[in-house]
Amino acid sequence: MPDGLGRGLDAPLFERVVIIGVGLIGSSLARVARRKNLARTIVACDRSAAVRERVVALGLADETYEAPAEAVRGADFVILCVPVGACGGVAEQMKEGLAPGVIVSDVGSVKQSVVNQVAPHLPENALFVPAHPVAGTENSGPDAGFATLFKGRWCILTPPGGSDAATDRVRAFWEGAGSNVEVMTPAHHDLVLAITSHVPHLIAYNIVGTAADLEEVTQSEVIKFSAGGFRDFTRIAASDPTMWRDVFLNNKDAVLEMLGRFSEDLTALQRAIRWGDGDALFNLFTRTRAIRRSIIDVGQETAEPDFGRRKVDEA
Amino acid sequence: MPDGLGRGLDAPLFERVVIIGVGLIGSSLARVARRKNLARTIVACDRSAAVRERVVALGLADETYEAPAEAVRGADFVILCVPVGACGGVAEQMKEGLAPGVIVSDVGSVKQSVVNQVAPHLPENALFVPAHPVAGTENSGPDAGFATLFKGRWCILTPPGGSDAATDRVRAFWEGAGSNVEVMTPAHHDLVLAITSHVPHLIAYNIVGTAADLEEVTQSEVIKFSAGGFRDFTRIAASDPTMWRDVFLNNKDAVLEMLGRFSEDLTALQRAIRWGDGDALFNLFTRTRAIRRSIIDVGQETAEPDFGRRKVDEA
Repeated sequence: MPDGLGRGLDAPLFERVVIIGVGLIGSSLARVARRKNLARTIVACDRSAAVRERVVALGLADETYEAPAEAVRGADFVILCVPVGACGGVAEQMKEGLAPGVIVSDVGSVKQSVVNQVAPHLPENALFVPAHPVAGTENSGPDAGFATLFKGRWCILTPPGGSDAATDRVRAFWEGAGSNVEVMTPAHHDLVLAITSHVPHLIAYNIVGTAADLEEVTQSEVIKFSAGGFRDFTRIAASDPTMWRDVFLNNKDAVLEMLGRFSEDLTALQRAIRWGDGDALFNLFTRTRAIRRSIIDVGQETAEPDFGRRKVDEA
Repeated sequence: MPDGLGRGLDAPLFERVVIIGVGLIGSSLARVARRKNLARTIVACDRSAAVRERVVALGLADETYEAPAEAVRGADFVILCVPVGACGGVAEQMKEGLAPGVIVSDVGSVKQSVVNQVAPHLPENALFVPAHPVAGTENSGPDAGFATLFKGRWCILTPPGGSDAATDRVRAFWEGAGSNVEVMTPAHHDLVLAITSHVPHLIAYNIVGTAADLEEVTQSEVIKFSAGGFRDFTRIAASDPTMWRDVFLNNKDAVLEMLGRFSEDLTALQRAIRWGDGDALFNLFTRTRAIRRSIIDVGQETAEPDFGRRKVDEA
């Protein structure tokens, strides 16, 4: 098939899947669930009337609801796709509607905090399998989603009791969406993502802010000459503000730990520049090139250069 | 024409253009000079025999030399395309061969240091117009270049006496390569590029190094889950180590100044996270989104999302 997702399942994996929060991730899940026959019925739930209108216009779901408790009635799989800080509130709102044996999951970029927020609200016979698809773009909202967003990406599951039947079903769902699945503890997830995602975002936001505040260099100069490297930071720094505020507030310890290491290392580099220690610079810059090569080798990136975005052909 | 570069000039702009150092930038210049008829004769000079062999195999030049003094004989335009720290040495090696009235330029990412290194070696009747094309990729060497690298990108000229006839000819050359040209002082250039290019590169190198040194998170985890944001830093941190060592050693003051501001701002963000100041985070993250929009509006980037690199189609 042209989308590279292969053909879908013969029978739906779940009967009634409820997606709560239809932004970039939620709407991408709705699209791939439909295309790969991961659910017989797709239910969308969003508190925003404008989002619900887009869901209907785009044909993303079979049913659309405002209230979580109504949306989840009769569901066998509920996925919270709201910002990390909103998960506890939504869990509380939906708990009355949950059927026995329902599997509840999420897509949050922080896991320990989601577990702490959500678990207390769930009935004893609900099965909680937190998940984090490591995929996204800098765009937000139901129109930004697409069915292949998760293809070839990793999805991390952090089930409280390790692997079990519910975990296997959630794994099958994400594999159906094209992802590779890995299981780890919430605490380890939060540490790994602090360095591979959270601190990189914080740094990108920070330098774009620093550049905006300069007096000697005009805003228009920063924008004009951004192709030198800055441009890539602005893409990351265009990510959803609410989502990222919640990530930093909810993964405080790991982010502060990784940020401390980053700052120490940066101070050492600053000193090398001040004292003209070219060898220290050269050695680091050589070492980092090898890591890039590994990322390309494991298929999380192509070798195609990306600075010269307008590359048209080779001479 | 399919490359979007338009048709070339009717008569060559220069008679004999010498490109000293045939890496990513030098080889891209050779390609576009040929395609757009910017030079009657293209001369390539490189101290590496392996590079000269590739130049011949790729058909990038009409003549190939090892020694700068031989290469530049009879030239009306000489462009140094070597790392910033090597410019002074090359200028000294080539000075004997320079013809009266020759225009000498470069492509260095730092300008004041290049002026200081090169100017003392030039004969009085040589015309020096330093240049910096703000374009590149993370790849290096003669095979990495392509004719459209400079298309739609800015090239900054820092002529010592402001605009004059020689500056106009260098401007025409870069406009012929598809670039927009801007003139400023070397000192201002170095400040602008410190924030739009040099500090972003240093930060990218630094975080990739920090991630490589962690004990709690394995290297393979960093590589696997890089799609969360880290991946974009690794691309920047794969840039040429020699070139970038020289940039930092030769733009020390501006880099240290901008790095100081960056670190101050990062400390403030760190404090906001520690104290749970969500509003401070949200306000910065909203402000930085607007800057991204401006970069797209002025044509230095497309709105196409780039995190989900494997995006195949929309559902």
